[in-house]
Amino acid sequence: MIKVGIIGASGYTGGELLRILAQHPKVEVAAITSRTHEGKKLEEVFASFTGWNGPVFNGSDSADAVDGCDLVFLAVPHGVAMALAPALLEKGQKVIDLGADFRFRDYRIYEAWYKKEHCAREMTKLAAYGLPELYRKEIREAQVVGNPGCYPTSVILPLCPLLKAGVVDPDRIIIDAKSGVSGAGRKAEVAYHFPELFGNFKAYGVATHRHTPEIEQELSRLAGKEVAVSFTPHLLPVARGILSTLHLSLTKTMNTAEVESMLAEAYQGEPFIKIVREPQLPELKNVTGTNCCHIAVRVDPRTRQLIVVSVIDNMIKGASGQAIQNMNIMCDLPETMSLVQWPVYP
Amino acid sequence: MIKVGIIGASGYTGGELLRILAQHPKVEVAAITSRTHEGKKLEEVFASFTGWNGPVFNGSDSADAVDGCDLVFLAVPHGVAMALAPALLEKGQKVIDLGADFRFRDYRIYEAWYKKEHCAREMTKLAAYGLPELYRKEIREAQVVGNPGCYPTSVILPLCPLLKAGVVDPDRIIIDAKSGVSGAGRKAEVAYHFPELFGNFKAYGVATHRHTPEIEQELSRLAGKEVAVSFTPHLLPVARGILSTLHLSLTKTMNTAEVESMLAEAYQGEPFIKIVREPQLPELKNVTGTNCCHIAVRVDPRTRQLIVVSVIDNMIKGASGQAIQNMNIMCDLPETMSLVQWPVYP
Amino acid sequence: MIKVGIIGASGYTGGELLRILAQHPKVEVAAITSRTHEGKKLEEVFASFTGWNGPVFNGSDSADAVDGCDLVFLAVPHGVAMALAPALLEKGQKVIDLGADFRFRDYRIYEAWYKKEHCAREMTKLAAYGLPELYRKEIREAQVVGNPGCYPTSVILPLCPLLKAGVVDPDRIIIDAKSGVSGAGRKAEVAYHFPELFGNFKAYGVATHRHTPEIEQELSRLAGKEVAVSFTPHLLPVARGILSTLHLSLTKTMNTAEVESMLAEAYQGEPFIKIVREPQLPELKNVTGTNCCHIAVRVDPRTRQLIVVSVIDNMIKGASGQAIQNMNIMCDLPETMSLVQWPVYP
Amino acid sequence: MIKVGIIGASGYTGGELLRILAQHPKVEVAAITSRTHEGKKLEEVFASFTGWNGPVFNGSDSADAVDGCDLVFLAVPHGVAMALAPALLEKGQKVIDLGADFRFRDYRIYEAWYKKEHCAREMTKLAAYGLPELYRKEIREAQVVGNPGCYPTSVILPLCPLLKAGVVDPDRIIIDAKSGVSGAGRKAEVAYHFPELFGNFKAYGVATHRHTPEIEQELSRLAGKEVAVSFTPHLLPVARGILSTLHLSLTKTMNTAEVESMLAEAYQGEPFIKIVREPQLPELKNVTGTNCCHIAVRVDPRTRQLIVVSVIDNMIKGASGQAIQNMNIMCDLPETMSLVQWPVYP
Repeated sequence: MIKVGIIGASGYTGGELLRILAQHPKVEVAAITSRTHEGKKLEEVFASFTGWNGPVFNGSDSADAVDGCDLVFLAVPHGVAMALAPALLEKGQKVIDLGADFRFRDYRIYEAWYKKEHCAREMTKLAAYGLPELYRKEIREAQVVGNPGCYPTSVILPLCPLLKAGVVDPDRIIIDAKSGVSGAGRKAEVAYHFPELFGNFKAYGVATHRHTPEIEQELSRLAGKEVAVSFTPHLLPVARGILSTLHLSLTKTMNTAEVESMLAEAYQGEPFIKIVREPQLPELKNVTGTNCCHIAVRVDPRTRQLIVVSVIDNMIKGASGQAIQNMNIMCDLPETMSLVQWPVYP
Repeated sequence: MIKVGIIGASGYTGGELLRILAQHPKVEVAAITSRTHEGKKLEEVFASFTGWNGPVFNGSDSADAVDGCDLVFLAVPHGVAMALAPALLEKGQKVIDLGADFRFRDYRIYEAWYKKEHCAREMTKLAAYGLPELYRKEIREAQVVGNPGCYPTSVILPLCPLLKAGVVDPDRIIIDAKSGVSGAGRKAEVAYHFPELFGNFKAYGVATHRHTPEIEQELSRLAGKEVAVSFTPHLLPVARGILSTLHLSLTKTMNTAEVESMLAEAYQGEPFIKIVREPQLPELKNVTGTNCCHIAVRVDPRTRQLIVVSVIDNMIKGASGQAIQNMNIMCDLPETMSLVQWPVYP
Repeated sequence: MIKVGIIGASGYTGGELLRILAQHPKVEVAAITSRTHEGKKLEEVFASFTGWNGPVFNGSDSADAVDGCDLVFLAVPHGVAMALAPALLEKGQKVIDLGADFRFRDYRIYEAWYKKEHCAREMTKLAAYGLPELYRKEIREAQVVGNPGCYPTSVILPLCPLLKAGVVDPDRIIIDAKSGVSGAGRKAEVAYHFPELFGNFKAYGVATHRHTPEIEQELSRLAGKEVAVSFTPHLLPVARGILSTLHLSLTKTMNTAEVESMLAEAYQGEPFIKIVREPQLPELKNVTGTNCCHIAVRVDPRTRQLIVVSVIDNMIKGASGQAIQNMNIMCDLPETMSLVQWPVYP
Repeated sequence: MIKVGIIGASGYTGGELLRILAQHPKVEVAAITSRTHEGKKLEEVFASFTGWNGPVFNGSDSADAVDGCDLVFLAVPHGVAMALAPALLEKGQKVIDLGADFRFRDYRIYEAWYKKEHCAREMTKLAAYGLPELYRKEIREAQVVGNPGCYPTSVILPLCPLLKAGVVDPDRIIIDAKSGVSGAGRKAEVAYHFPELFGNFKAYGVATHRHTPEIEQELSRLAGKEVAVSFTPHLLPVARGILSTLHLSLTKTMNTAEVESMLAEAYQGEPFIKIVREPQLPELKNVTGTNCCHIAVRVDPRTRQLIVVSVIDNMIKGASGQAIQNMNIMCDLPETMSLVQWPVYP
């Protein structure tokens, strides 16, 4: 059994790690930590785990709390992970950070957008960007993985084959994304108070969201040139899920079926990526509770625009599920282990 | 024009007072206060008031802030109103308290359930209980009105005619009530964080909710004996509205139509009470946005139980609308002024 | 009193017309029709109107049903209005059609997108496009008004000043719009079954929605050239409201404040249009229940994109409220009569 | 591998059977039928199954469609199952009916409440009532199982130990139950149209719901006397889950902890029943997606009432999960096989 620790296990992504790992036949959760819930049982923090028999929360936030673990998930705020990671690496532990601290190849971009100095600059160069469909080999060999952001996952997956093939203009990428509220984490704020959001909908962080440089980093590599995207996130009045609508300009004449085929071919054999064919379109609830990404495309012959719609569960393929997919790869386990699940419907 | 002040205008009930008074032809809102939003414009606190041209928030919480007002609404936490009210009365201002401080004829009950000493004990005897359908005359003559709680309003209105007529057993009153989340106020707590409540439902405060003694005070008067009720509130995943289901034991044989007629007769001429006849049943959305209470009944001949369903908008008939109804009565204005409205549907 | 009739009053837009007109001091609803609800009282069709005392539904769908009315609202499916309207005009009645039959200056566009022959081709030339902020004068003089679609209203209003001023590229207009489910009307379909949509979100009608040519007709006039837009609607899991996000390319360097000022100046004095200033952004619930349109803008200096967000209540400014605004204009009444209302919040 | 067939697999319970069985290591779904979807692939009927490789829908509704299956689930409307079952039994197939046709020991009760003649009267005597926690032995030996209704499951489980112990008065059982909309099935009706129910809440079927006699049948056996209950269901604006609040009269003085212990002891070792201890209370989302039933109790010393709250997922423990639990028992498989799952949260 592989022993894993979770630092910061009382938030939503921590909870999802625990839920998915509970089904994993090769993993034992050996340690969970939370500074605010020291000594509590899991079911006291998440009533959804009523009856859970596992470790209680360790209140420490030091690397010692996960001594003896083979692999450590960091589900802590941005800035905390980079302080913790070096000690873990020194002990030979594998590390998967669910925050932003190890997503950037160039720490200066991190520092510019996250407005803090990076205290483990050298480590950022060793980290793999944990999007298995693009970086499976790097992840397998890495000791540190920066798990992608939720929005970037939903955006990079559909764009990857299109940019590689050069069929969309990298200078005209418009991303209109919509996320459920769990993306904001589990914290009390009037802005996320139930009555404020019920029946409501809004854009936020227009042109300033911190997932922008992460998206650009990856799209630039795929396009082979510097790419700047226009990224507009919105807050959906649901608990889970992201739907991203990409508005793209085709560089050559193609029809819907041709683009569908290009994507289907690119992702053939990928267990979690599904191309939804015309006339179907992806729906949030067809992926919530799963590690899947559904993608559909439409060519608008009148405007030569290519509209791409992708959906993921922001907490799973957009966070904890992808982290476990990365864990499976890093630990030489079958990549889909504990991650195969049809969505609960309706 | 009658000049009114609102102390504590940045919460949900304060917002609703302002929204309804904006349509009132005989009232001018002269002062609004909020300790946390001093100097702000209303639209900075409620974006729903974008474009509002009215007074800015006064940061004071003393009685001076509403000098010159004829009538003052207190939309402050329990315990704050009783400290403010005496000074207002001394200045000759009328006072309507939307909290619990002036709802109890016997301050000892307040002290027992609210766990604090009442600092204006004598004033509680002068206050009218602001349920116009029962106490119109007292309200007209009162200088202080204790505006009823939301649950009590939804419970007392349907029970009043039944208890007066002696057709239900006052010793077997079971109240199963369900409220939207706005009843919890506008405060940041993880328990009311959107993702926690979305798609969720639960009971809370079972057998301990502080609206219990308020309900019992009024039912006891109506029944002419001490009444203890079993009260179980639940939290509905919607923003607004209360539906109360009353499980009652008939003391004599009656059918549904007979009970309907008894209620219809009792509330004939009441502008805000509507008896919904079989086979119809009340629905939350048929009253949200209005000052109405809809009531339906069913006799179950198999068990001799009488099931009563009532719905109100917890923020309007259950709070701010009723407060304005009381204001109209206290100021000799038509009782329905600014309160006539069909619900927005769907 | 102006006498109005509503043909097809049992749908959502019919219900909203009735709700708003109930508050109108100068209008009497003299006749309502519904083929499926002949002889029923309004409260039998909409329980939200419990207690309503007005005309019962006339089951006829002929023009005779509204004899004696000064103005007739047509809230019937596309294709039905054009068959009814000529007889109404002949009787000298004013007509406001809430459907698409009289929105197009060129009937051939209607015929191409709606896939049916237009049986009142000549009348289409007489009709005014009922967007008062653009066509107040034409509406005042018209006997027939084609009331705009919900999406077009949300799109044309923010784009009008920008296209007139030439600051955005008319060849690169991308519209990513999101609507509540009431936009689909009041009809039973599995696709709109509550469990299918609860917690869900999806795009639909991508590049094929019939509001596209309506948007293009108006934008082309404003731009002074043929405009083709990329229009992608989505279905929000809420009952009401539209939020449209416009992704535009600036033709000159401007910052957010400059674009805000341009819009604010253009709509100065317009009672229903409000420019929401940075850092605020529009939210659906700040307009639901009202006839208002809120608009905000952001310039993204990194990409030179201009992102515009607009919100309306699809049933009010997007349908019945706008129709009544048009009625007020056509009947020489104050334009805002019965339409001034702050949103119920939360 | 056990071969199973599902007759009527295109509804919600059919979909849930397929979803859960997809994870079952000992079962192969050999045949699925649907009269309206003949020849279609599963993903065409449920997009949530995009990528599913299994049998296509057989359009037949005869017993032949499931030839060769060891066990057949009937997920068809009431009245259809009793016509199909005899032929299946004759072929030696085991049958689990998810409808009401085989829930009643006395076919006359079925006929009185379901208003149709029972065409397989003799078979009803052979059928086991499929509530494993009460009838595990009977289910193991039965060839036909009548799978319990969703409301009855949520009511009988908490009441069983209390009635057996004689601590609650069987003549004063009041059930106030609330269900998500999926309980109404997957059918297009205006009453379940998304905008009608969004933000709404109502009671329905008061004193007339057909789950009443099913509840009474089981409670009467447990109480050892004829029991009549007062049952009031409500429709929650969520997709899934049932919360039942039971209002009971204690026959002896007990406190909350004592009742908790009585229940905990009764259900010790039961894998799917969890007693939630004070001060916690059950929440819908703590069981949705699982086969669990959570139960909490509160004694109100002021009224001697015992309030019991239970939650289940109406589609799983209230339907398809329980059916698979029964299948596991009937086929000598571990009872929890494919049914162990923590809820997706939030």
